[in-house]
Amino acid sequence: MVTRTVMKFGGTSVGDLNRIARVAEIVEARARGGGGGGVAVVVSAMAGATNSLVELARGAAGDALHGQAFDDEYDVVVASGEQVTAGLLALALRRKGLRARSWLGWQLLLNTDEAHGKARIIGVDNPHFSAAVDSGEIAVIAGFQGVDRNGRVSTLGRGGSDTSAVAVAAALQARTCDIYTDVDGVYTTDPRIVSKARRLSRISYEEMLEFASLGAKVLQTRSVEMAMNHRVRVRVLSSFEGDVPGEDAGTLVCDEEEILEKQVVSGVAYSRDEAKFTLYGVADNPGVAAVIFGALADEGVNVDMIVQASARSEGRQNIVFTAPDREAERAKARLESLQEKIGYEALTVGREVAKVSVIGVGMRSHTGVAKTMFEALSGKGINIQVISTSEIKISVLIDASYTELAVRALHTAYGLDAE
Amino acid sequence: MVTRTVMKFGGTSVGDLNRIARVAEIVEARARGGGGGGVAVVVSAMAGATNSLVELARGAAGDALHGQAFDDEYDVVVASGEQVTAGLLALALRRKGLRARSWLGWQLLLNTDEAHGKARIIGVDNPHFSAAVDSGEIAVIAGFQGVDRNGRVSTLGRGGSDTSAVAVAAALQARTCDIYTDVDGVYTTDPRIVSKARRLSRISYEEMLEFASLGAKVLQTRSVEMAMNHRVRVRVLSSFEGDVPGEDAGTLVCDEEEILEKQVVSGVAYSRDEAKFTLYGVADNPGVAAVIFGALADEGVNVDMIVQASARSEGRQNIVFTAPDREAERAKARLESLQEKIGYEALTVGREVAKVSVIGVGMRSHTGVAKTMFEALSGKGINIQVISTSEIKISVLIDASYTELAVRALHTAYGLDAE
Repeated sequence: MVTRTVMKFGGTSVGDLNRIARVAEIVEARARGGGGGGVAVVVSAMAGATNSLVELARGAAGDALHGQAFDDEYDVVVASGEQVTAGLLALALRRKGLRARSWLGWQLLLNTDEAHGKARIIGVDNPHFSAAVDSGEIAVIAGFQGVDRNGRVSTLGRGGSDTSAVAVAAALQARTCDIYTDVDGVYTTDPRIVSKARRLSRISYEEMLEFASLGAKVLQTRSVEMAMNHRVRVRVLSSFEGDVPGEDAGTLVCDEEEILEKQVVSGVAYSRDEAKFTLYGVADNPGVAAVIFGALADEGVNVDMIVQASARSEGRQNIVFTAPDREAERAKARLESLQEKIGYEALTVGREVAKVSVIGVGMRSHTGVAKTMFEALSGKGINIQVISTSEIKISVLIDASYTELAVRALHTAYGLDAE
Repeated sequence: MVTRTVMKFGGTSVGDLNRIARVAEIVEARARGGGGGGVAVVVSAMAGATNSLVELARGAAGDALHGQAFDDEYDVVVASGEQVTAGLLALALRRKGLRARSWLGWQLLLNTDEAHGKARIIGVDNPHFSAAVDSGEIAVIAGFQGVDRNGRVSTLGRGGSDTSAVAVAAALQARTCDIYTDVDGVYTTDPRIVSKARRLSRISYEEMLEFASLGAKVLQTRSVEMAMNHRVRVRVLSSFEGDVPGEDAGTLVCDEEEILEKQVVSGVAYSRDEAKFTLYGVADNPGVAAVIFGALADEGVNVDMIVQASARSEGRQNIVFTAPDREAERAKARLESLQEKIGYEALTVGREVAKVSVIGVGMRSHTGVAKTMFEALSGKGINIQVISTSEIKISVLIDASYTELAVRALHTAYGLDAE
């Protein structure tokens, strides 16, 4: 079986003609290097291009248009950015004497649903695509874009080029999908906070999903989901390093079974974009939670941690939950308008909170992970306001001013510090 | 039969969001106005966008790529400009409560040959397109672009959006194709030279072709050819005038038979981009002209007027021809390299010459047209260096410094001056 390679370069990596020439060097090294399989390259729009196009589309539409009336033509405008980069990189590769051609979403038949602006990929269905790649012609693919079943241009939403790359890798049955970005991999935590943070050589899909949904900007959540579903190994690499990355460069996102040295906890994540809502003395009626969280969902508020406890008053309870701080005003207004219907006594919103999480597939088989966390935090005098857990994650809500202290304490407590 | 309308707006007319909003007003007035037939709008890229994209493509390719190795990806990059405008105008129309959608070259199945960068249109083949227009949804078409039989993006070359518009009008069997531009029609001559120049209310295809090939920038030659072949009436209008142009606004380019008040001469054109080559004492051998003009054709030099006359030397002749001044150096170098093969005695190149032409289908049935021209010029003491004629055109080559004088004299002599 031939081993096909898929590489993806983001907007900063193709930000101007010099950087595109640099990307052409990296692709050339891979194409001329061993392996012998074909190469497909997925590119984003040049940094800044998408924002300019979004601004134009919004300007043309004014405030009048929403939803479908805006989104399908927005996609037509915005998808042009990736089209330009694909053509430019194909030219830059040919300049080096390589065979290359661009592929747009509709040429690749990268089929999506009709959710314009945030479309989901159905599949890559051009029957001639694999053969073209195998012929040795480098495929330069405009990321972020597809085509819906009506033959209209669709886009995948911000970060969608990662998802394009994974979809192409799945279609090509490529061994790995290399995502070139401006960081050199996934770290045990934010190196700006913990100087002893270590680059992970491997991380499982599940852990990466938790990292991504906790705000790590390295990979888009949907691209990780798709990689997991299609068992595509994704490697996160820096485009500023050498032309041919070594075997152990970057971070490989892969199946848990491929990870030999399993850590109980792989990393510590944090988010400051949190607000804590407390509804005091909610009438203890069946269905009251459905009213609260249904209304917030209608408002587009992403509720995260939820805790329910008995209140001092008889037959009443307190409900605590968190939501992104940027959605706090909207959520508060909606809850206030529903005070009578919900029947609560008081509402408070805490804005100065942060969520700190530890993540690791090892939690499934190890006990005492939570105890380590709570001890480490109490050892520093940090009060835990809310706790929520999943199979491979424990999150706590704390006072925002303790964020760095907590992250550092946990990084040390779980033995993640580099020597 | 429904009367469908096709409108086309050039790069200046859609140069920014304000101008696009203005175009939306013009289209709205037409769509809501009488007639009842559907409306299709063809747009160019925003002024300046194409040049930026061309620069990017050239920068990515460097000097290394030529011909097909450059042109197909150049088309991918450059075609994105019209894609953006089409999406933006569709949004601007929806903002006004109109139904509208964009159509890209590949969606319209505007099929072309594979001559990337200067492709020729084969046809508009999407079987659903007419029905979509008839449904009352305004079709906003990205001009200048098509798709070749391999499913690659193609572009029609500079000015190609005019040709797109005529092709769309032919496919829709539209009664007229309105080309909105920054002038309000076709004039009897350049109003900057002759203040009494008059706007022509109608002009025949044949005359327009002569005007276009003589350098009038109003319509691209190929669009006029296509209009003539498909009997599409083209109206040249200003996009800076009222929303709903009157019946007699602009200039209608149409069949000769639709023009009731025929003038013998419709207009006076001139070109200063001329150089006059004289080859003295060319050996009078069969095939020598083929050598000279074959070599120039290989060099891409567009030879125009050609005159051959006996030279003073026995068995030798002088050959005079004109070519664009910007191609003069290239032509001269090639002829010098062929001096031995051609066997001429001397070569001179006159750069300070201009071509002045009178055009009119009336020449076919009227005599004395040439006489009027020669008398008018000699009356001003202007010496004629070369003469060439076609069925509906007489051109003379004169000293460039007499250009304005000649144009004015001819405009008066043929009764073209406005009262």
